[in-house]
Amino acid sequence: MRALITGVAGVIGSDLAVKLLAKNNIVVGIDNLSGGRLENLQPVIGHPSFTFIEGDVLKDADLDKGMRGCDIVFHLSAKSDIKTIDEDDFNQNTIATYEILDKMRNLSVGKIVFSSSSAIYGEPDLMPTPENYGPLLPVSLYGAAKLSSEALISSYAHLYGIKSWIFRFANIVSAKSRKKGTTVITDFIDKLKKNNKFLEILGDGKQTKSYLHVDDCIEGVLSIVDKTEGEVNVFNLGPKDQVSVLEIAGIVHNALGIEKIDIKLTGGSRGWPGDVPKMLLDCSKAYALGWMPHLNSRQAVEKAVGDLVESVG
Amino acid sequence: MRALITGVAGVIGSDLAVKLLAKNNIVVGIDNLSGGRLENLQPVIGHPSFTFIEGDVLKDADLDKGMRGCDIVFHLSAKSDIKTIDEDDFNQNTIATYEILDKMRNLSVGKIVFSSSSAIYGEPDLMPTPENYGPLLPVSLYGAAKLSSEALISSYAHLYGIKSWIFRFANIVSAKSRKKGTTVITDFIDKLKKNNKFLEILGDGKQTKSYLHVDDCIEGVLSIVDKTEGEVNVFNLGPKDQVSVLEIAGIVHNALGIEKIDIKLTGGSRGWPGDVPKMLLDCSKAYALGWMPHLNSRQAVEKAVGDLVESVG
Repeated sequence: MRALITGVAGVIGSDLAVKLLAKNNIVVGIDNLSGGRLENLQPVIGHPSFTFIEGDVLKDADLDKGMRGCDIVFHLSAKSDIKTIDEDDFNQNTIATYEILDKMRNLSVGKIVFSSSSAIYGEPDLMPTPENYGPLLPVSLYGAAKLSSEALISSYAHLYGIKSWIFRFANIVSAKSRKKGTTVITDFIDKLKKNNKFLEILGDGKQTKSYLHVDDCIEGVLSIVDKTEGEVNVFNLGPKDQVSVLEIAGIVHNALGIEKIDIKLTGGSRGWPGDVPKMLLDCSKAYALGWMPHLNSRQAVEKAVGDLVESVG
Repeated sequence: MRALITGVAGVIGSDLAVKLLAKNNIVVGIDNLSGGRLENLQPVIGHPSFTFIEGDVLKDADLDKGMRGCDIVFHLSAKSDIKTIDEDDFNQNTIATYEILDKMRNLSVGKIVFSSSSAIYGEPDLMPTPENYGPLLPVSLYGAAKLSSEALISSYAHLYGIKSWIFRFANIVSAKSRKKGTTVITDFIDKLKKNNKFLEILGDGKQTKSYLHVDDCIEGVLSIVDKTEGEVNVFNLGPKDQVSVLEIAGIVHNALGIEKIDIKLTGGSRGWPGDVPKMLLDCSKAYALGWMPHLNSRQAVEKAVGDLVESVG
């Protein structure tokens, strides 16, 4: 199988490339390095079955070069920082999905796997939230762009016979989540490295969400793609539990070996505009196919924090 | 109240202008006349409280001029022919919604009413389909663009305190639905006027949907906007019944006074790519607020057909 990964230098994309190559696939990765980092690709650069295109899916020549001859597209690229995403990013994320689908149609590429997000649910009144929850009322432009992409994929799947998988991920954590301040984990590590006596937490610390380790995420995606056949396959992916932001502060603080910190809560139920304070996905549909994350939310956060603290030193 | 209506020269917009003016509101209407028709505005052109801007919501100067000083926006403009809508139309419909929301934010306009569609549900396996149905998997680019606009509105409502109403309409019928071939009604009238002995029906004729008369639609929108208070208010609007395409052929054929026609069915469950063969909305949420359409689907189609046959002669 020849696979295109968009956003290949990101947290998920780079590990997915490793896994697909290990299974004897040919992998073409594209990334404009606006969010992804070249060093994430160290394990695959030079692999005889891997091609990296430093380019943009919004540039037709780059996309065409990347997709020609592929059997499947893993579309992972997106501006993804909910805190800073703006209207132009919304348009870019949505138009990127459209350009990819349109290129798939032109080149007769028959399968797309899309990284959606729990953010499409907004603030659901049913938790754990199943895939058939509605109405879908995202509270961030990030969530809105993901939902728009889902809608586009669904219509293309139907109109042009493109088989699609839409994965709505819990928060993904990884040793590679190093981009400053983009996750609560890196936010805390950054802050405590500057001042190990004091930690400011955005919100009331009670935000409670579900975290999925990137290894479990990729395992889930690949096994479910193998096992499903529908035109549009929608799956939540996450563990069964949650951890609170205050608990994460404790995990980071322990991992850094700091004895005592003063915590200041900025207050309010959410950390920033567009933040969803509570999130837990009902993933029984994925579990029923035999996938189950090895790490629960707490373990996933602990592992990512441990790896991050170790690698950054 | 000063209201902006986008797509004011369309089927719904032009009648909405009449109703809002009758209730002593000031109305500004904008339309690029790509789909809407100037003659639809005959009843309001010259009204002292009505201003028409022949312009485009995608042009900042036009939009700014239209929206300045308004209290509410009725965003109805969209490329809406499911048969011919293409990828550029998707982008335009989505970006138009974004530009309108962004302008609202800049000008502190606090309310938006959006004309969404049953098309966002795709081909649901629950019918009548309630507002909380999921997952939302539209099968046309028209439906995808409507869902993208809903997502944008939801996120703006949350982020910037814009109060919003999203109405998912059944098929709207009106004496003004005269644009060639855009509805099954005009398609049949056009064909039978050319040849009153033969009618080609796209699909197997068993497509069975729900039709809402434009007068009932506008009454529903205005009464529900008056009665609801939430941040994002989502309502299906339609009658309780359906009619089939073959029944509509019968209604048109009777109205034209034709004695006998040969019907040729092109076959297949849907009339065109992106067509949804069966549609019935669960509108109990709207009914519970005291709104109920005066005409059921069959009556709505009969009235529209009667008016259309009479006016076109």
